[in-house]
Amino acid sequence: MTQPDLHALLDRDSAQAELFDLLRIPSVSSDSTRKDAMVQTAEALRAKLQGLGFSARVEATAGHPIVYAEHLQAPGKPTLLVYGHYDVQPEDPVEEWVSPPFEPEVREGRIYARGATDDKGQAYAHVRGAELLMKAGELPVNLKFLLEGEEEIGSPNLEPYLESHKDELKCDVIVISDGSRFAKDVPTVTYGLRGLAYIEVRVQGASRDLHSGSYGGAAPNPINALCDIMAQLKDDQGRITVPGFYDSVIPLTEEERQMWANLPHSDEEFAASIGVSALPGEEGYTVLERIWGRPTLDVNGIWGGFQGEGSKTVIAAKAGAKISCRLVPGQDPIAVTKALMDYIPTLAPAGVQVEVIDHHGGQPVKFDLDSPFIKAADRALERVYGKPAAFGRTGGSIPIVADFARILGAPVLLVDLGLNEDGLHSPNESFAQEDYFNGILTSAYLMQEIALASESE
Amino acid sequence: MTQPDLHALLDRDSAQAELFDLLRIPSVSSDSTRKDAMVQTAEALRAKLQGLGFSARVEATAGHPIVYAEHLQAPGKPTLLVYGHYDVQPEDPVEEWVSPPFEPEVREGRIYARGATDDKGQAYAHVRGAELLMKAGELPVNLKFLLEGEEEIGSPNLEPYLESHKDELKCDVIVISDGSRFAKDVPTVTYGLRGLAYIEVRVQGASRDLHSGSYGGAAPNPINALCDIMAQLKDDQGRITVPGFYDSVIPLTEEERQMWANLPHSDEEFAASIGVSALPGEEGYTVLERIWGRPTLDVNGIWGGFQGEGSKTVIAAKAGAKISCRLVPGQDPIAVTKALMDYIPTLAPAGVQVEVIDHHGGQPVKFDLDSPFIKAADRALERVYGKPAAFGRTGGSIPIVADFARILGAPVLLVDLGLNEDGLHSPNESFAQEDYFNGILTSAYLMQEIALASESE
Repeated sequence: MTQPDLHALLDRDSAQAELFDLLRIPSVSSDSTRKDAMVQTAEALRAKLQGLGFSARVEATAGHPIVYAEHLQAPGKPTLLVYGHYDVQPEDPVEEWVSPPFEPEVREGRIYARGATDDKGQAYAHVRGAELLMKAGELPVNLKFLLEGEEEIGSPNLEPYLESHKDELKCDVIVISDGSRFAKDVPTVTYGLRGLAYIEVRVQGASRDLHSGSYGGAAPNPINALCDIMAQLKDDQGRITVPGFYDSVIPLTEEERQMWANLPHSDEEFAASIGVSALPGEEGYTVLERIWGRPTLDVNGIWGGFQGEGSKTVIAAKAGAKISCRLVPGQDPIAVTKALMDYIPTLAPAGVQVEVIDHHGGQPVKFDLDSPFIKAADRALERVYGKPAAFGRTGGSIPIVADFARILGAPVLLVDLGLNEDGLHSPNESFAQEDYFNGILTSAYLMQEIALASESE
Repeated sequence: MTQPDLHALLDRDSAQAELFDLLRIPSVSSDSTRKDAMVQTAEALRAKLQGLGFSARVEATAGHPIVYAEHLQAPGKPTLLVYGHYDVQPEDPVEEWVSPPFEPEVREGRIYARGATDDKGQAYAHVRGAELLMKAGELPVNLKFLLEGEEEIGSPNLEPYLESHKDELKCDVIVISDGSRFAKDVPTVTYGLRGLAYIEVRVQGASRDLHSGSYGGAAPNPINALCDIMAQLKDDQGRITVPGFYDSVIPLTEEERQMWANLPHSDEEFAASIGVSALPGEEGYTVLERIWGRPTLDVNGIWGGFQGEGSKTVIAAKAGAKISCRLVPGQDPIAVTKALMDYIPTLAPAGVQVEVIDHHGGQPVKFDLDSPFIKAADRALERVYGKPAAFGRTGGSIPIVADFARILGAPVLLVDLGLNEDGLHSPNESFAQEDYFNGILTSAYLMQEIALASESE
């Protein structure tokens, strides 16, 4: 049959206006004062999907609610489950935003707002993708949406939800768009994600802040101690010193290293894009290998003592740091967290007490490059972008991807619609208008290609 | 002649009420929003001294004003110059105060307020000491007060003031009470102070905060870099690694080490008083030697990245730390600061930029134990406390003591009225009522003893 031209049918104005409405709600899942915003966002998504003819509901969890919707009117056709998250990262440091984080604004072709790309924009592209197909005639597949509100805090209630709803959620393939394409002109299918282990270290010295003159030389200094501990977590080759850390890492294959080496990538441009003069890391690996295929340890935050204007001669009573490790296939976040929690207190110098707190973790994952769904995605991307997709991994984590695959027994298709330059997790997060509109088209073509592939089986 | 009993003449109620009035004014010199409080405190001191018959004035400086007052009606008698400071440390962390820092309150015999002991309480003891002698008959010496408002920010305008007013400030001895006695039952004459070098280190990584998944493994992390730098500033014997740092240190004499070893001191009690299990520091020195006679390096504050509730997977663009070194006789703060500023950038790992900022410094000092003024102080203390004074140094700094000695050409008498347990620079700073009242008596007896000593010359 002749297919309507989806490019021509796409209503860019209303697609953008509806996304703006979502971006105006400050759905920061880690901020306990913003529970109302979470509920408001979930209700907005439910109402939209219901309006499209989905059976849709907002379901309470022990934390923030889940939006579930389904449209099952393509008998005999494959069932897709689209996962996305409507929660966003905290907006701090808020003073660094050019326009307020929850007042979306277009500047030079980009939509600026917290959550523009991660993940409101990318998730909503699928909602509008389904709407576009309906406008063109009909949805050629059965479609389910699962949109959660706790991705940025480790999705504590998603795994139990998947377990308890696994019959309802049954599907042939899971589609997730929550990442970055390799480059502006490179449509990307991602076949691997890193995992995560996130901990907090708290160091206690004296029972109160002390005068550095009256006590300096004898009082334990928890900030110096914390720095000593942090410094010992990596050696001078950039390798992590936690015992056993690398033991179960699955090494990169020669094929992967070769495939990645052929991708258009320049260390100089990459360094220039973030304004640095060098890209330090583990010796013996290229930059792409270090980001996609090797584990890391980064201190994400540190604090202690006097941070104000001027000087204060104090020995602080306490100091702390947040630390995360990105993990690669083979590594287990629970085992890595335990190794960190066992090792770090052994590094404490005399006189301080060290406490390590487990925040959250996520499994690393890797998918089969020969899957027919990956091939359908490849064709869909070629229809949108006019060129075949690149196959890479990503350094980020969607901790629940492994849960989806395990619990629902279906492959996961990672079709990234954003770009690294979108500044996800940073001030001035943005999403190119073109990427948003192409994302809607990608979603629609992907459903068509999956439907077509099932016909030819 | 028979001397009136000063103990009996001391009006404790009014001495305390007047100190409370001073403590209520939040004279935090480092806080640029509190300039009015600084002026208000200076005016209150001027008015009080003028009321006692002093010729008194508040004098503008490039920063906070100086209060100067003189009472020169004892011809032929020695002239004392009392120095003190009316500015106080910042009150943060304010949530840790039991009673508000600028609402003085007595609990269990102690006056709680920011500045209670450092230095409003100790400075005002001399004002009331002079008043007590006047009430008893007359001031037996010529007396000058110099009370500044910038001690806690390094006294940037005091040295120029001393230089430009050195004729007016001419005196036989300078008296300063701005420290802690060795112990509750040990009246103390302090013959040495440590100096100070205070810097700030700023580390810049990428030009913006980065997602630790998309960039972790290749992006420089300024927090990890800062920790690496801090950790390299001391070796595993607790010695500071800055090149040349110890070169000009005047070693402790055997006599000093013996005298200090004989003082009543228990490492266990000292550790217990600050709630720690160990007193780490430079190997080869006792705790007293490390605090009084050896230089230190302490990180006083550190910051970078995400410090909020929960987790945020970010690689921060920047991080920073405040660092101070306490210095001992022989060391020069300018030279030490230069050594720090030269050395620290050499420790920066690849990919980050390090900036070192000089905050302020102070000269270490040591005075002659055979001075007649020190002997007069010894006698005055014995009249108040019923026992001879101990001779020690202190680990703290009064950066301008060396300036006084050099510019005015007079010895400096350090008569400490407080105690370490007063918690100076900490939340819940306090001053024992008894120590305040004994301080008033000490001031009065000291003036009498100095007058008597001059008669017997």
